[in-house]
Amino acid sequence: MKSSGPRARRDRNAFSNALKRGLYEAIFRRRDIRQFTPDPIPDEVLARILIAAHHAASVGFTQPWDFIIVRDPERRRRVKEIFEAERAKNAAQFTGARRKKFLSLKLEGILEAPLNVIVTCKPDRFGPGVLGKTSIREVEIYSACLAVENLWLAARVEGIGVGWVSILRNDALAEIFGIPGDVIPVAYLCIGYVSEFPDRPILATAEWASRLPPRTLIHFDSWNGRKSTDPLKTAAHDLKSTIDDPSIWRAIFPADSIDEPPSRD
Amino acid sequence: MKSSGPRARRDRNAFSNALKRGLYEAIFRRRDIRQFTPDPIPDEVLARILIAAHHAASVGFTQPWDFIIVRDPERRRRVKEIFEAERAKNAAQFTGARRKKFLSLKLEGILEAPLNVIVTCKPDRFGPGVLGKTSIREVEIYSACLAVENLWLAARVEGIGVGWVSILRNDALAEIFGIPGDVIPVAYLCIGYVSEFPDRPILATAEWASRLPPRTLIHFDSWNGRKSTDPLKTAAHDLKSTIDDPSIWRAIFPADSIDEPPSRD
Repeated sequence: MKSSGPRARRDRNAFSNALKRGLYEAIFRRRDIRQFTPDPIPDEVLARILIAAHHAASVGFTQPWDFIIVRDPERRRRVKEIFEAERAKNAAQFTGARRKKFLSLKLEGILEAPLNVIVTCKPDRFGPGVLGKTSIREVEIYSACLAVENLWLAARVEGIGVGWVSILRNDALAEIFGIPGDVIPVAYLCIGYVSEFPDRPILATAEWASRLPPRTLIHFDSWNGRKSTDPLKTAAHDLKSTIDDPSIWRAIFPADSIDEPPSRD
Repeated sequence: MKSSGPRARRDRNAFSNALKRGLYEAIFRRRDIRQFTPDPIPDEVLARILIAAHHAASVGFTQPWDFIIVRDPERRRRVKEIFEAERAKNAAQFTGARRKKFLSLKLEGILEAPLNVIVTCKPDRFGPGVLGKTSIREVEIYSACLAVENLWLAARVEGIGVGWVSILRNDALAEIFGIPGDVIPVAYLCIGYVSEFPDRPILATAEWASRLPPRTLIHFDSWNGRKSTDPLKTAAHDLKSTIDDPSIWRAIFPADSIDEPPSRD
């Protein structure tokens, strides 16, 4: 009887705690990296990372992504120039101490990283009809972003850092890399080994921004939540308490395990 | 000496094969799900999934996402109506046997799933200056997509299915859920336990689309690749051979392990 109860039914498809931990460690230890060692990435490792990216969810199973592997130093120098010009524009958005801090931050590793990878999106890859694309026209670009997160997590478990350089211009990227007009550059990534993965996001350590408490990002049934007279208000309260409770990680990161549970900063 | 060689230096930050496997299994076994059991999701599990989403990469550490947890059946019925109208538009993109097949597919579980979750994006959350946002204006939306992939993978290890319903209208979602004008609905997700995760993507089994061979998505140094006289052409060839080689997974999914390595279909 026990094995057919709701809990057993629920847990049937769950991973073991050991396998869950592999995913959650990847998620908590992933960082935006801007400093790389020159060690080359073996083909075997790069292949696994790209296959992981290719197994992201995609609207209508369109798999709209392509991957341009960039080793050419000359093209990278041109990208770096674009970056520098855009960075000056970005700096102009800030004033005073904030601008000073912005200018002190290293924001990319375009030339130092052993590899740059461009993830693109080709809408309507299989023709103009796309299952899942009607009024929301950007869905295939969203899919390409999902592939980027898979790539990022796979790189992390392989000990490889990834940094997304968004301070660029797509028209310039299209020109430098011969990207056709119907293909959209989505992510320009610097990829390589790192001396050490920082415990906390670089922008948190630099006191540029802080991790928001997750409870502040949760809404119930509508943006403004439920009325306080509503019985579902209690359910909302319960979830917000649970999200702050470190014991929800105990089974996955047992205290007696060799490694510490990763900091969730 | 050995431990300071390039390989040891590279592998220093890599996860163990057992932990790597947790991530890769999540990636290969994740599916777009449209059929759910009514079992409720415990708060502890939902909390872990939302924390995983919240630990995605974000441009300038802006964390632009919010999560609207939708239980209200009345609002869901209104979403389902929008879906039905958009689905008719989507069907009109296809003709003949293709349209027939489209109409035979179940594309959502809006009413059956115990939970719907809307992931939104609030650009300029901390003011108009955003580190990393210059010419490419959509970067925060891209970040919200990264959070969706984290959520999807975390749900998978917890034994929970996720389906992204993109056949909707954002203006309708904004109205139904009181989403402010400066917040963009990015993903409407159905979330719940499933009887069984299919081995292959539902749209592959339905012969709507096939997994593209990853080697066809890889370009070297430019969209049209390198000239055949170029020495780097060999490097490209090597990576394309490696990506097809199943032995690159052997250490992570050993043949004598209890479970089979997941199908990568």
